[in-house]
Amino acid sequence: MPKPCPLSADELEAVAKEHGTPFQLYDEAGIEDQARGLIKAFAGSFPGFKQFYAVKALPNPAILRLLTRAGCGLDCSSASELFVADKLGVAPEDVMYTSNFTSKADLLTAARQGVVINLDDISLVEDLAGVCKGAGLPFPKLICFRFNPGLGRTDSETASNVLGGPDAKFGVPREDLLAAYSRAKALGATRFGLHMMTGSCVMSDDYWTETVSVLLQALAEVASGAGIAREDWAFINIGGGLGIPYRAGEPENDPSRLAKRLRGVMDAEAARLGLAGALPRLYMENGRYVTGPFGWLVARCHVVKRAFGQRYCGLDACMSNLMRPGMYGAYHHISVAGKPTPEDADDPAAEPLNVVGTLCENNDWFAKQRPLPASAGVGDLFVVHDSGAHSHSMGFQYNGKLRAPELLLRRRAGPGAPAVVQRVRERETIASLFAETSIPADLGAPLRLDTPAAATRAEARDGEAPTRKMFVWAALAAAGAAAAVATALAMTRARQTA
Amino acid sequence: MPKPCPLSADELEAVAKEHGTPFQLYDEAGIEDQARGLIKAFAGSFPGFKQFYAVKALPNPAILRLLTRAGCGLDCSSASELFVADKLGVAPEDVMYTSNFTSKADLLTAARQGVVINLDDISLVEDLAGVCKGAGLPFPKLICFRFNPGLGRTDSETASNVLGGPDAKFGVPREDLLAAYSRAKALGATRFGLHMMTGSCVMSDDYWTETVSVLLQALAEVASGAGIAREDWAFINIGGGLGIPYRAGEPENDPSRLAKRLRGVMDAEAARLGLAGALPRLYMENGRYVTGPFGWLVARCHVVKRAFGQRYCGLDACMSNLMRPGMYGAYHHISVAGKPTPEDADDPAAEPLNVVGTLCENNDWFAKQRPLPASAGVGDLFVVHDSGAHSHSMGFQYNGKLRAPELLLRRRAGPGAPAVVQRVRERETIASLFAETSIPADLGAPLRLDTPAAATRAEARDGEAPTRKMFVWAALAAAGAAAAVATALAMTRARQTA
Repeated sequence: MPKPCPLSADELEAVAKEHGTPFQLYDEAGIEDQARGLIKAFAGSFPGFKQFYAVKALPNPAILRLLTRAGCGLDCSSASELFVADKLGVAPEDVMYTSNFTSKADLLTAARQGVVINLDDISLVEDLAGVCKGAGLPFPKLICFRFNPGLGRTDSETASNVLGGPDAKFGVPREDLLAAYSRAKALGATRFGLHMMTGSCVMSDDYWTETVSVLLQALAEVASGAGIAREDWAFINIGGGLGIPYRAGEPENDPSRLAKRLRGVMDAEAARLGLAGALPRLYMENGRYVTGPFGWLVARCHVVKRAFGQRYCGLDACMSNLMRPGMYGAYHHISVAGKPTPEDADDPAAEPLNVVGTLCENNDWFAKQRPLPASAGVGDLFVVHDSGAHSHSMGFQYNGKLRAPELLLRRRAGPGAPAVVQRVRERETIASLFAETSIPADLGAPLRLDTPAAATRAEARDGEAPTRKMFVWAALAAAGAAAAVATALAMTRARQTA
Repeated sequence: MPKPCPLSADELEAVAKEHGTPFQLYDEAGIEDQARGLIKAFAGSFPGFKQFYAVKALPNPAILRLLTRAGCGLDCSSASELFVADKLGVAPEDVMYTSNFTSKADLLTAARQGVVINLDDISLVEDLAGVCKGAGLPFPKLICFRFNPGLGRTDSETASNVLGGPDAKFGVPREDLLAAYSRAKALGATRFGLHMMTGSCVMSDDYWTETVSVLLQALAEVASGAGIAREDWAFINIGGGLGIPYRAGEPENDPSRLAKRLRGVMDAEAARLGLAGALPRLYMENGRYVTGPFGWLVARCHVVKRAFGQRYCGLDACMSNLMRPGMYGAYHHISVAGKPTPEDADDPAAEPLNVVGTLCENNDWFAKQRPLPASAGVGDLFVVHDSGAHSHSMGFQYNGKLRAPELLLRRRAGPGAPAVVQRVRERETIASLFAETSIPADLGAPLRLDTPAAATRAEARDGEAPTRKMFVWAALAAAGAAAAVATALAMTRARQTA
């Protein structure tokens, strides 16, 4: 069951008045409690358990700080994510770097930073050794490989997004695994991890028991073949992918139950494989599970259209704010502020509605023929649930659309205490879309981003001060982000190349 | 047949050395000649013909300037695109504004700017009247509606992207069309346009003849029903969608042939409908056709991986640079600089290769099992063709990936003259991803984007100047965009909220 939005309709209106629409709202208490709960559940069964938050899900520094304070490490997939982990002061041992087709430059960044490097191909062992040697760094003492066991498993919504199996681009196949560890050991690695990530939005415990079995089996083979002692296995990382219930009525995952079950599987498999005793630690790298349910994309309906017997509610948000329905056909729960969500299509207060964005791209839908309040219409705030993962971070600027600000609802001082909302990322500005562009001199005048648009230049001639007019224009164009736009306009000036 | 890259392998290497990889390369001569050729072909059959370039395809101001100088108007889909049209000084009558589920704020921006407004729903007539009245502006004299004739037609690659028909979110259905024009006329409109856009990447002339027939039929009905005289119809806009051959061997569209055929259809239909005499002008709004074939995404292969019997070439580009294969399964031709492209899989120099990016997302493929030079490997420059439309403009920053710089290959002074390449958009920087974020004070220290990363702080203690070290780090992390990153690091500082 998707989480209800923690703000009332009146509170949402107050936030919209201050910050404009659309906006992304994140619930500090929900995120922090979810992270702590996950860690507690697993640490109870697996001493030394670590959860590395998948930065790609919600790469906002304020959220990442919240999560590292709650005990999470960070799972980074790129130099940019390593950069923010470093800037946040996260200890290198609390950072896993899992990338694919990694450049030497990025390998060197990771090696310098001292994070736990998880390699996706045997060829990267030599690349890593080369860049370390070139920079006068030792080969990492601790090294990990991502294993592709040949199992193609995926969530139901993204059939194309197969993370494992013979047609996935990820991971080291079994035939290379032994050689990869042997070579890393020869190069100076003394401690080892083994990683696997072959699913996404997983709602079944069986996926995880299979993962643990497959990993321990592979570990036993490698340990024996490469002569790696049991105490030199630092961890197995069973990846991320713990799912969330996107649909009403869908049950949640239960980390405590899962952890206990995995403990049993791990002990049984270890005994069967002769691995009992010093077992490696268990690591996970969940993103969606930790933050997904505690984010809500809030957008205003500003047009209702009827065509071919269907009713459309057009929001001021679009795929720039949430790509998943358009890209994957993914389902996101939707509610309308202040109006009860119908149980189903038979609810007399329900009407099947299309909820769409403003993009000139027909994939730009939030819901098709969804039973929603029949009274929903222009002016209503629509809440798209579970936008706390892979929502803002996947947004593009196609059609010149601007990404929404990110707002953090702070933990309430107590029951009934007023809601405090802080902006942790500004709304994008139109001027920023063009700030890094330039026009060759022979093609005419450069863009002047620091002057008001013609629409207001005409009016400014009527006597009002241009600054005031610029502000008015910005307010109209950016619908509430007036201050940010005005600042950007003042700061930015397009450059001219010779 | 996709256009060959106009730069030799040596020239591409020189560009890569100066600007880093990946980069987007656009051919000034190709784009300009294509635009002029299209206009000339249609203007020969349709006096007063106008081609409005679809800004969303390639919203770079230098390219837009090139196109407006070549005689194009601009087709804008958002306030951002209206903004750049205005900043470029494009005359309002040369700007069409076609949006959907348009907010009142955006309607007002368009009305103030005086551009040609194309409405997507009958309800927007009242919205537009309301904002004009509120701002003391007259209702626009010239108004256009986007007609959805109920035909669902699409290109083969994007089955989900149906732009017309009963399940498309776009356009005014026939049952509302007459009332929409009547209401606009009552509000003060005196000149009218009629628009339809129900396809994309169209390779068949029949699509266009059908479009002209359907539009004239609708125009005749509306003209009669709403009492709009023939001379008050300013134009019919048959939309964009003229396709390009993405695959080798595929023939190109022929605008001259198409224009002549449409002239015949238009005259015949007009005669049949009793519309002969003062026929409206013909407008189009092609994006892909004009710039698509004259863009090349150039990326370096830095990892070759073998797994499960397949060979993968990993590029330093990803979906951030070209979303279409991942989002639509779209085909883009690929060549390898300095190595002949195999004719087919039977070519003895061919090997089926997977060409992939670095994103942690399995959709991040450029080609699957594509016959490419068997000798292709690490260090090679891969050229992804037809990236001049919907490529950079659709890019996201998922996984913290950075969008490539845009480079303009200038028209050569003559045959054999040296290639001149100018950067018209900078490479994105890591720091820019976080520049607009902030961390509430009680969650600890803000990000310091103006200090070097830890990876170099450690080394800086060894005696070298931090500035130099920062530069080294930037060069490593951004692979060639050192100057831009260093500038951003120096300019940007994360803010702290109270």
